Amino acid sequence: MAKITQPSILAGFMELLPQDQIQFNRIRDIVQKNYQNFGFLPLDTPILEKSEVLLTKEGGETERQVYRFEKGSNDISMRFDLTVPLARYTAQHYSDLSFPFRRYQIGKVYRGERNQRGRYREFYQADIDIIGDQTLDIANDAEIPTVIYNIFKEIDIGKFTIRLNNRKILNGFYQFLGISDTTEVLRQVDKMDKIGLQGVKEELKNIGLDEDQVEKILDFVGIEGTNKQTLDQLRDLNIDNETFSQGLDEMETVLAYLEDFAVPEDYIKFDLSIARGLDYYTGTVYETMIDDHPEIGSVCSGGRYENLASNYINRQLPGVGISIGLTRLFYQLKEADLLKEEKASITDVLVIPFDGFIDEALKLVGQLRKENIPAFAYTEEGRLGKKLSYADSLNIPYTILIGEDEVQTGKFSLRDMETGDQENLTLDQTVQKIKN
Amino acid sequence: MAKITQPSILAGFMELLPQDQIQFNRIRDIVQKNYQNFGFLPLDTPILEKSEVLLTKEGGETERQVYRFEKGSNDISMRFDLTVPLARYTAQHYSDLSFPFRRYQIGKVYRGERNQRGRYREFYQADIDIIGDQTLDIANDAEIPTVIYNIFKEIDIGKFTIRLNNRKILNGFYQFLGISDTTEVLRQVDKMDKIGLQGVKEELKNIGLDEDQVEKILDFVGIEGTNKQTLDQLRDLNIDNETFSQGLDEMETVLAYLEDFAVPEDYIKFDLSIARGLDYYTGTVYETMIDDHPEIGSVCSGGRYENLASNYINRQLPGVGISIGLTRLFYQLKEADLLKEEKASITDVLVIPFDGFIDEALKLVGQLRKENIPAFAYTEEGRLGKKLSYADSLNIPYTILIGEDEVQTGKFSLRDMETGDQENLTLDQTVQKIKN
Repeated sequence: MAKITQPSILAGFMELLPQDQIQFNRIRDIVQKNYQNFGFLPLDTPILEKSEVLLTKEGGETERQVYRFEKGSNDISMRFDLTVPLARYTAQHYSDLSFPFRRYQIGKVYRGERNQRGRYREFYQADIDIIGDQTLDIANDAEIPTVIYNIFKEIDIGKFTIRLNNRKILNGFYQFLGISDTTEVLRQVDKMDKIGLQGVKEELKNIGLDEDQVEKILDFVGIEGTNKQTLDQLRDLNIDNETFSQGLDEMETVLAYLEDFAVPEDYIKFDLSIARGLDYYTGTVYETMIDDHPEIGSVCSGGRYENLASNYINRQLPGVGISIGLTRLFYQLKEADLLKEEKASITDVLVIPFDGFIDEALKLVGQLRKENIPAFAYTEEGRLGKKLSYADSLNIPYTILIGEDEVQTGKFSLRDMETGDQENLTLDQTVQKIKN
Repeated sequence: MAKITQPSILAGFMELLPQDQIQFNRIRDIVQKNYQNFGFLPLDTPILEKSEVLLTKEGGETERQVYRFEKGSNDISMRFDLTVPLARYTAQHYSDLSFPFRRYQIGKVYRGERNQRGRYREFYQADIDIIGDQTLDIANDAEIPTVIYNIFKEIDIGKFTIRLNNRKILNGFYQFLGISDTTEVLRQVDKMDKIGLQGVKEELKNIGLDEDQVEKILDFVGIEGTNKQTLDQLRDLNIDNETFSQGLDEMETVLAYLEDFAVPEDYIKFDLSIARGLDYYTGTVYETMIDDHPEIGSVCSGGRYENLASNYINRQLPGVGISIGLTRLFYQLKEADLLKEEKASITDVLVIPFDGFIDEALKLVGQLRKENIPAFAYTEEGRLGKKLSYADSLNIPYTILIGEDEVQTGKFSLRDMETGDQENLTLDQTVQKIKN
């Protein structure tokens, strides 16, 4: 007897049972279909890349997590996101691409993170980006939340909100106030819930801001209301700064375009508190929250950047994009009990032949498949009960028994596995019934 | 200015331009759709596995090619096929699975092969397997060539032939003759083209076979004709061996079931020369050849095996399966100029607004997408000619110009980019036209 190795996978890796995998794939397929419906081109870069190309920036948390190894004379890294490969790809194939270059990529990425619940070391990202050659129109910034709206609407996760902001509004505002260390200011403002308005005022003065600066900041962070109201209040601040005005104009335009795209206003929230890291993004930024599950955090994030591939090419390639972390999203939706179609099945019909009727069963299966009805025959020996419970365990919605009677009459006994109802139907009737 | 790193990928890795990627995905989608139509469940195991689990058998060419490395305290290997992970998965999740367990998996695998044209170190495999618990009916052996027939018919690669054999016929035949070293016999028989019938006879006698053995062997390897004729001639050999008879019965049954499945006979060839390695497969074996391109070799191969997961579980799990090497297949089809749809496009319509009509363009784009017509607007500035050639470079079949006239009349000027024809159509007419 061969030595038995205990079968298991590495810690921090997701592996699903078929039932969950069907649900995962349903979500992935919705994402892909919508990306394609928006005219994004598919891309599939290698999972392994040259370390010198992938790790152009030294250090950083992400880079420490990289799976990196040598084979032969190659120093190899596994990609840790889809953005760096996109930058490399766009630079490498620049002359073969048409700009704006709209691409999507859905693929696995790898990060050797500390092992913790709901965090995976291998996970799917589903990215879209629109890359311009030197310039990129602001209309593209409205494409991104539109596709995201369509996707989450179709996945059907309940009410969600896409939060938008524009980094230029934030940068311009603090520039106007003559404040360079915005991080410290934001840190103090964040204490509002704890220490109250008066406390924050004190703290801001303590870090050296004058009365007028403090008032402006508190006016700014206190802005709320509809998207239109937020715009109006920002204009009323009379901030005489070009970056600020540009950001405001961009936001107004993006909101107008979202209306053109018929995205309902209550799914879109102009939210001044969204910043998305201070370096990379330079214009519109996005986060997406499930209204009833704020604990999940943002389920997809992204924004506008000024230069995609400066590490690889001497040409400015501005872009706007967003990334959905599919593996984590799936985990979270499952945890929050937000997955639809609990009884998912690939197969619509299991055909069960009585003894001696396999030929007829296979003929019928072939006919059903021709009608694009996923079906197969259960041809193993055994009691009928066992066969029916096989269908049941796979959540197959219909079974058809086939034997002497069925062959004689040309009618099949179609059983609805949910209700237990049975009907005698011709092939055409069977096909109709199942398709409905 | 930042240091520019030369953007490139590792040798032996495939990366496609969008146009080719669309074609690749078309093939992958056909494979997946057919697998699902046959009721195979999706699986997605990790690309990284524990080395101790993945590499249970020591040595071997494949294992030397494995990408293996350490991270933290983990000894990690990248999967080199989808069969070993399937064995591990089936054993690990045995009690959660329903048997027969029908699964497909389409994913990347890794082999550090010597770098050569048309061979890739990262490549897609698209596998199906049907795993039984202790037994598995022979009808399953007919499922495999049926799905393969449907797939290659739909990919539309020209006439192809699925070659079938059964290892029991070969084993039983040589058992009956009392020959244990079949490898040596097959080696001599293979010289037929070079040294002729008489030469082979001599060589077989030289390795110690008697007159009767040699005659039987030459009768056996000389058998040809229709599948029915091959069966009849094998029966006429009067080989009194149980394994042989069982193999013959199985083959006869599989051929009959393929008829039930309405697979045309000229796509199926019972071919005694197919062996598919001597160890792993124990029953039906498959190869698939493109008739006009024998130089490509088999585009998908597989067979019946007795025990999937003996390294991981003390339970006999017989199965039957097949694997399509998608990356290599794509490379070969492209080389042989067998790819269809040369002008592949994700997008059906590019909407081009005249100055000041972006809002109207986006509204139209939203309406087209709602009708599941992939579309987007070209909103960058520039001359009309540049915009039309953008559509052209992406092979987008239609463009719509939108400006004052179109908004006034509610009719859009739809341009067929292939013919250059232009028509003024309402939205409904536009949708109809594009869908046809």
